[in-house]
Amino acid sequence: MSDFNNALDEIKRGADEILVEDELVELLKLNRPLKIKAGFDPTAPDLHLGHTVLINKMRQFQLLGHQVVFLIGDFTGMIGDPTGKSATRPPLTAEDVARNAETYKEQVFKILDPEKTTIAFNSEWCEKLGAAGMLKLASHQTVARMLERDDFKKRYGNNQSIAIHEFMYPLVQGYDSVALECDIELGGTDQKFNLLMGRELQKDYGLKPQVVITMPLLEGLDGVQKMSKSLGNYIGITDAPGEMFQKVVSIPDSLMWRYFELLSFRPLAEIDALKASIDDGANPRDIKIELAREIVARFHGEEAAANAHKGAGNIVKEGEIPADCPEVNVSLEGADSLPIGRVINQANLASNSAQAKDMLKNGRVKVDWNVIEPSLMLKAGSYLIQAGKKKIAKVTIA
Amino acid sequence: MSDFNNALDEIKRGADEILVEDELVELLKLNRPLKIKAGFDPTAPDLHLGHTVLINKMRQFQLLGHQVVFLIGDFTGMIGDPTGKSATRPPLTAEDVARNAETYKEQVFKILDPEKTTIAFNSEWCEKLGAAGMLKLASHQTVARMLERDDFKKRYGNNQSIAIHEFMYPLVQGYDSVALECDIELGGTDQKFNLLMGRELQKDYGLKPQVVITMPLLEGLDGVQKMSKSLGNYIGITDAPGEMFQKVVSIPDSLMWRYFELLSFRPLAEIDALKASIDDGANPRDIKIELAREIVARFHGEEAAANAHKGAGNIVKEGEIPADCPEVNVSLEGADSLPIGRVINQANLASNSAQAKDMLKNGRVKVDWNVIEPSLMLKAGSYLIQAGKKKIAKVTIA
Repeated sequence: MSDFNNALDEIKRGADEILVEDELVELLKLNRPLKIKAGFDPTAPDLHLGHTVLINKMRQFQLLGHQVVFLIGDFTGMIGDPTGKSATRPPLTAEDVARNAETYKEQVFKILDPEKTTIAFNSEWCEKLGAAGMLKLASHQTVARMLERDDFKKRYGNNQSIAIHEFMYPLVQGYDSVALECDIELGGTDQKFNLLMGRELQKDYGLKPQVVITMPLLEGLDGVQKMSKSLGNYIGITDAPGEMFQKVVSIPDSLMWRYFELLSFRPLAEIDALKASIDDGANPRDIKIELAREIVARFHGEEAAANAHKGAGNIVKEGEIPADCPEVNVSLEGADSLPIGRVINQANLASNSAQAKDMLKNGRVKVDWNVIEPSLMLKAGSYLIQAGKKKIAKVTIA
Repeated sequence: MSDFNNALDEIKRGADEILVEDELVELLKLNRPLKIKAGFDPTAPDLHLGHTVLINKMRQFQLLGHQVVFLIGDFTGMIGDPTGKSATRPPLTAEDVARNAETYKEQVFKILDPEKTTIAFNSEWCEKLGAAGMLKLASHQTVARMLERDDFKKRYGNNQSIAIHEFMYPLVQGYDSVALECDIELGGTDQKFNLLMGRELQKDYGLKPQVVITMPLLEGLDGVQKMSKSLGNYIGITDAPGEMFQKVVSIPDSLMWRYFELLSFRPLAEIDALKASIDDGANPRDIKIELAREIVARFHGEEAAANAHKGAGNIVKEGEIPADCPEVNVSLEGADSLPIGRVINQANLASNSAQAKDMLKNGRVKVDWNVIEPSLMLKAGSYLIQAGKKKIAKVTIA
């Protein structure tokens, strides 16, 4: 019973809500592998640690012997945004979906056990519904209920248009749980409405309703806003070891235990011990370094984590011009402007033109902190140019 | 040009709205057969004169050389009411649809020219949409726009539930116009929103938007409420000649010209002449007899119309007890109640018990003007019992 309680504590760890906990306890007592679903966007994945909060929870279930379904929502993705209003969501082809699935695997199998993971695509059962099936699915929910969803309610109240197909998406997600006969669905707190739709639909279809577990949205490096690419406060799981290490160590102390709870694989008891060590006078930075090494090791291996630890401090930090930043002059030699590649070379920011080219191609060159296009031409003026993680110079072109 | 104006006047005859008339004039000037669509319910048809208002308008277009599409909405019909809330709308099978189409033909080809009529079924193109196509279709309209439809607005305002698939039905109807590339769609005034949806969708799909012509809902025999089976104020197009004749003659004078406008095939000039004859002292009843003969002849032939005219007067008129109504006593013979069949027999309202049974089965027996169930048991009391069109008696059971 103590094992059972430990398992339950780990499952509840960090969760925002469990709907409903009694049913979860019942499921866990069945002593059979449960089917745990989490849905993912079918567009090209480039995961950050925020995404891994959910994936870590999937891993916990795997460790307890359950089967997780990594569900790629390709059905709606292959439709794209049919309003045509969003240029950023063109319809995906079957090839795109297959390629993105591979990219997902590369990333998530650093956390999940491939043996206990089913990768599924919802086009498999959604397309079979046909036009008539889609109408029948739509009949399972009311307009009023759908308008209760926070974002719909706000948009409707503000006279912002909601296209009718948008009402269908939560139903499609719910139908996935019907088709898969899920026991449990995991999702972010922003997904609560959609996850509950699965419960309702399963009841309609005569199935036992799934337990819903919502996970919080992880705060980004600033400790305030949720981690996101567009806010720039993220740690990408493909970030280089040094960068990743540096970023974890840079988080405010207030965020440290949150990250331990949601990102560390250490058991709760170990984390309690670390907390106690702070009370005994340990330096919070040392504890963050522990976390940074754990996370870097997860995605890059132990050796890379050790190297990142050693190398920490040699790295140019975003927005901070190092005290020893060299100043370099480059001549236009009568031209109007110079290709960025040549400037890097002449400013000794690359070992040779092949390396310059390579860094440009990989987006590792920044001008005034912005990643630039390899085709950039620079006119007369002063620029702060960074090439790779460690080289930076103030370059004056004249 | 005078022919053109006459044609336009006939098309406008009785119409409630034309959206938009300039476009209609443009279409008519193209001098090619236009494609005119009207949609019909796929459930077993049993048409009354109210339904023929639309069919008569289709006929007018045929007389002008255009092609009408009699569209049977079998796609949604084969889904039925998927909420399962309406016991009266079970899903139709393909066989049901085919049989109902035959029944439609039998009835509407008394008005329409089969040569210029295409019978179409929207399952043909709707099923091809598939699940993804249905979602794309849904993307063409917003929730707010849909909630502008009168009945949806009322139901939403009154907290009466609207299932999401109900929002799809107007879009499906609109998509029919896209698939058929209709020039004109006809419908009742209650269909205006759906008909305009066809215009919007056609524009979205890069087609010329259809002209919409709405026809009023015909008032029933009471002259107030719209003609409907459930209100009992209807003239069925399969009503027997005598009954049909009697009903037309029974309409209030105030309704006479409305019926001429919407139900008669006489040209407007002839109707004007009839109106003038009233001013010259003609009896309105004689004018109604003209209309009754025209309508009976349409559905039963000239001979039946002439016979109905001759036979009129021998018939028990709804709600009027004839002066010579016999009074009959029937004994309970110690029982609590008697089966209606035995009462009819004993009161000489049927020639024999087989005829009594037959009339009961066909709903031709009324007690106190109400059609009754064949299984009715009558207790002690006085009843006005009518069997068939001509036999009536005041029956006292004791």
